[in-house]
Amino acid sequence: MCKGVVALRRFKLVIAYDGAAYAGWQVQPGRDTVQQAIEEALQTIGGHAVKVHGSGRTDRGVHARGQVAHVDLACRMDAKGVMRALNAQLPQDIRVLKSALVPADFHARRSARAKEYRYFVCNSATMPPDKRHYATHVYRALDVEEMAAAAHHFVGRHDFASFTANPQREVKSTVRLVTECMVRKRGAEVVFRVHGEGFLYKQVRSMVGFLLRVGIGAEERGAVEGLLRTAAPRTARVPTAEPQGLFLWRVFY
Amino acid sequence: MCKGVVALRRFKLVIAYDGAAYAGWQVQPGRDTVQQAIEEALQTIGGHAVKVHGSGRTDRGVHARGQVAHVDLACRMDAKGVMRALNAQLPQDIRVLKSALVPADFHARRSARAKEYRYFVCNSATMPPDKRHYATHVYRALDVEEMAAAAHHFVGRHDFASFTANPQREVKSTVRLVTECMVRKRGAEVVFRVHGEGFLYKQVRSMVGFLLRVGIGAEERGAVEGLLRTAAPRTARVPTAEPQGLFLWRVFY
Repeated sequence: MCKGVVALRRFKLVIAYDGAAYAGWQVQPGRDTVQQAIEEALQTIGGHAVKVHGSGRTDRGVHARGQVAHVDLACRMDAKGVMRALNAQLPQDIRVLKSALVPADFHARRSARAKEYRYFVCNSATMPPDKRHYATHVYRALDVEEMAAAAHHFVGRHDFASFTANPQREVKSTVRLVTECMVRKRGAEVVFRVHGEGFLYKQVRSMVGFLLRVGIGAEERGAVEGLLRTAAPRTARVPTAEPQGLFLWRVFY
Repeated sequence: MCKGVVALRRFKLVIAYDGAAYAGWQVQPGRDTVQQAIEEALQTIGGHAVKVHGSGRTDRGVHARGQVAHVDLACRMDAKGVMRALNAQLPQDIRVLKSALVPADFHARRSARAKEYRYFVCNSATMPPDKRHYATHVYRALDVEEMAAAAHHFVGRHDFASFTANPQREVKSTVRLVTECMVRKRGAEVVFRVHGEGFLYKQVRSMVGFLLRVGIGAEERGAVEGLLRTAAPRTARVPTAEPQGLFLWRVFY
C-alpha cells in the first residue's frame, strides 16, 4: 500500500479499545497486547516494522476511550487514510477514532499535559451481564454522598505514595497534581471521573478502591487527608479496584 | 440440595442475559441457548430435569435486562435460595435478578400483559469497542427528531403485517397494540423504547429498521402510517435492525 520513498511523517492516533482480551497496552513477549496489535496492523499495511508510542500504559483488562499514540510512517496516505487502513486491519475490539498529521516534535507521552480516567461501578444486588466486562460490581449499598465528599480531598498537589501499588517504581517523586475527582450516581451506576497532570502506577484504581471503602462505611470521608499527609507506603486500607471498571478516557495536549 | 418429597411450587424468575454467545432463548438441539443453560443449572441443583417456561423467545444475539420465566420445583428452598443456587451454577452472562414464589396459575407467557423493549444505536463515525456487542453502529448522521416523529405513528392498535419477518407464523392476527414508541438521543447514543401488549416475530427490529431509514432520510416520517394502513407483507423498505442492539427490557404482569 505504501510505495516509493517518502519522508517520514508523524501521525497522532486517538484509540479506543476493549481491554478484556488483552494483557494491557504495552508489548510483552508471548502475550496479546494492544500496542502489539497496532504494530502488527501497521506492519501489514506498510510492509515493515513500525513502533507505536503510547501516552502511557494501561493494565490488563483496563479499557480506553481515548488512548493516544504517535507513529512515524513513510507513507503517502493522509491522516484519514491511515485511520481507515488501520481500522480495516485491526480487530473490532481496537478502533482508531481519530488521526491527525502532527509536527515531528509531538510525542504521545512527553507532550501529554493531562489525562482523564473514568471508573464505572454497578451498585446493585446482581451484576447486569452486559456490564460485566465494563464495570465493577459492588453489591453492598454505597453512600455516594460520602464518597463524593472524600473524593474532593484528592484534588490538589499531593504526595500519593499511599495510593500507588509500588512507589519505588517512580524514579523522582510520588507527588502528583489531581485537578478533578468526582463521584456521581446515575441509577445503579456510580461513575468516577479523575483528571490530573499525570498518575502513578495504579493510582486511579487505588483512589477508587479507597473511595469504595468510604462508600461502604469502612473508612471516614476525612481519612483521605491523613493518608495524603503521612504519604506512607500503601497498606490494605487502600485496595486496588478491579481493572474492568477503568477507562483511560482522554489525553490532553 | 433438594431432599425429601416436597410438593411442587412455582417460582417466577426475572432474568438478565448477554445474548452474544447464545443462539437465542429457546432450546435448539446442538446449540447453546439461554433456556437450555438455565434448565441445565436447575438439573445440577435439583438432580432432575426441570422445564423453564419463558415469557417469549428472543433471537440469536438479542439481550435481556428483564426476561421472565417460571419453573416448578419440588424443593425446600425459598425464592431467594433458588436465585442464589441458580446464580452459583449459571455462567456470568446469565443472571437471575429476582425470584418470587407465585400461584400455580401464574404463567410467564400467558399471564404477561405487556412488554418493553429497548434498542440502542451508536451514531458515530466509529463504534466504541466496548459497545460493539450491545448497540448497533450507524455512521451516517441520524435525524433523531424525524425518527421520533415517525415513531409516534406506531402508537396505537395497528396491523403490523408490514413490520414482521414472516406474518404467516402468526396463527390469528397481525394486529397488535403498541402503547409507546419513543426515540431519544443521549450524546452519540440513540435509544428506542417500545412498549406494547405483545409483538410479532421481529416486529421491534423491523420498526427500528424502518425508523433508521427515516433517520438517514431514505423515508418520510409519514410513511409509517401508509405501511400500517395497507398492511402488505414486509418489503426491503423495512429491514430488520441488527440483533445486538435489542434488549427485552421488562415484562409486565
